[in-house]
Amino acid sequence: MGRLIARRPVLRVTANGAARRPDSIAVEEPLELRVGGRALAVTMRTPGHDVELAHGFLLTEGVIGSAADIRDARYCDSVDDEGRNTYNVLDVGLAPGVPTPDPGVERNFYTTSSCGVCGKASLDAVRLRSRYSPGADETRVSTEVLADLPDALRRRQQVFDRTGGLHAAGLFSPTGELLVVREDVGRHNAVDKVLGWALLQGRVPASGLVLAVSGRTSFELAQKAVMAGVPVIAAVSAPSSLAIELAEECGLTMVGFIRNGSMNIYTHSDRVLLPERAPEPARNPVLSTS
Amino acid sequence: MGRLIARRPVLRVTANGAARRPDSIAVEEPLELRVGGRALAVTMRTPGHDVELAHGFLLTEGVIGSAADIRDARYCDSVDDEGRNTYNVLDVGLAPGVPTPDPGVERNFYTTSSCGVCGKASLDAVRLRSRYSPGADETRVSTEVLADLPDALRRRQQVFDRTGGLHAAGLFSPTGELLVVREDVGRHNAVDKVLGWALLQGRVPASGLVLAVSGRTSFELAQKAVMAGVPVIAAVSAPSSLAIELAEECGLTMVGFIRNGSMNIYTHSDRVLLPERAPEPARNPVLSTS
Repeated sequence: MGRLIARRPVLRVTANGAARRPDSIAVEEPLELRVGGRALAVTMRTPGHDVELAHGFLLTEGVIGSAADIRDARYCDSVDDEGRNTYNVLDVGLAPGVPTPDPGVERNFYTTSSCGVCGKASLDAVRLRSRYSPGADETRVSTEVLADLPDALRRRQQVFDRTGGLHAAGLFSPTGELLVVREDVGRHNAVDKVLGWALLQGRVPASGLVLAVSGRTSFELAQKAVMAGVPVIAAVSAPSSLAIELAEECGLTMVGFIRNGSMNIYTHSDRVLLPERAPEPARNPVLSTS
Repeated sequence: MGRLIARRPVLRVTANGAARRPDSIAVEEPLELRVGGRALAVTMRTPGHDVELAHGFLLTEGVIGSAADIRDARYCDSVDDEGRNTYNVLDVGLAPGVPTPDPGVERNFYTTSSCGVCGKASLDAVRLRSRYSPGADETRVSTEVLADLPDALRRRQQVFDRTGGLHAAGLFSPTGELLVVREDVGRHNAVDKVLGWALLQGRVPASGLVLAVSGRTSFELAQKAVMAGVPVIAAVSAPSSLAIELAEECGLTMVGFIRNGSMNIYTHSDRVLLPERAPEPARNPVLSTS
């Protein structure tokens, strides 16, 4: 795209003094997503892979269930001061029979009118709208594979390496094969882009796939995994309470704090093949994991 | 509040084997913000300091300009399955004469109808609505003070220490005195909470204050700083292109990549007092910083 990285002068201060030099910066631009010509959402994102982003967003918000639910997606003639197309407005046409979503679609997972606003209501909303809950998925993945995912993701983070300013999400096979990785200034956008890729590849429901994310696991990211039918989500950092509750209820295996070969398994650990015990007796007692 | 941390069992896997043990998890719950009884926004946040959060959000979205613009703020009777108040719905009453905001208020900074959707339009929207642009602020802060901010923030991150799952924002004096720190599962919420605190303390416009954030600086965080009249924002990690452009246009000093005594100054470096040169001649040439 040529729009991922900007160059800007920066005053760099170190123990040796201050020097002005050019620096590589992660580009952030708004994307307005329209459905049938009507504005649905605006997100600040890294330009590129916008059609994947739209597919992933509409999938994980429950608007569509398959790539066939989208008839077409094209950039509108949104122009800047100098008359150039900004490529920042994407209009999606839904296939006949697919209901047009409300503009407030994003809020439906956070609150329902039927009860008080609480985490429980948010969980119920996801469960009611999920077409591909991962509960029955029989994927198995070893801790060895899981332990390597953060590094595998990082090795493919080309823009992060140059700017330090991006989040990443990737889809892996249970044997650790990397299928796709996307970087974005927004964590949710990186996840939408890889899930949109999966939808376009005919791989949704994403059974047998592992979603790896570079940061923390929030409710929103867990929601996206559940809505796409992902059975395992693996993160470098910690999950939130509500992310864990959603994973528990919807059959999603949640792994976090993957660092230096160690990790925490928060839910549905039956999908994780644990390491064999060392041949010599362990010095610390090893508890049952049942 | 007693609602910041949840305890949950986790299967911990290390080289020594797998063991089930309790773990501390950062709590995430939805907050529905209402104005005059009408839903305005829903955010996933760490419970607590919700009144500050509402003040900060309404300030940085341009709805209010002072604490006097809010008549009252109270939790609604939103109850969960068991009839307990969730404390997840906060209704704000505006003072007479303060216009009620549109439900789409958050999107106004990202897109305007007058031109194409682009970064430039987003910058214009902030500039048009900002009452306290920091341009004329004569605050000066030394690189020594800036270099210590991430550690000062981290030392006060009580919940992060136990969960690893939170972002932080803090307000400091130019001499490095910590005034307030807030932690939240959402970066924008942590910033809204400290800016709401400042508003309630009569310290908005926040002239003479330094806003420190634990992660990256996005457009959204830069927007919040500008809307509150903060003259200096300092971050551990990288800013985005649009965050830098907004800072440049609105007179905000933006500092990032503060690590091990080094840092990058992206905009308005005149507010930063640079270190004196080492007495012996530097081995690397030191360029002019004008």
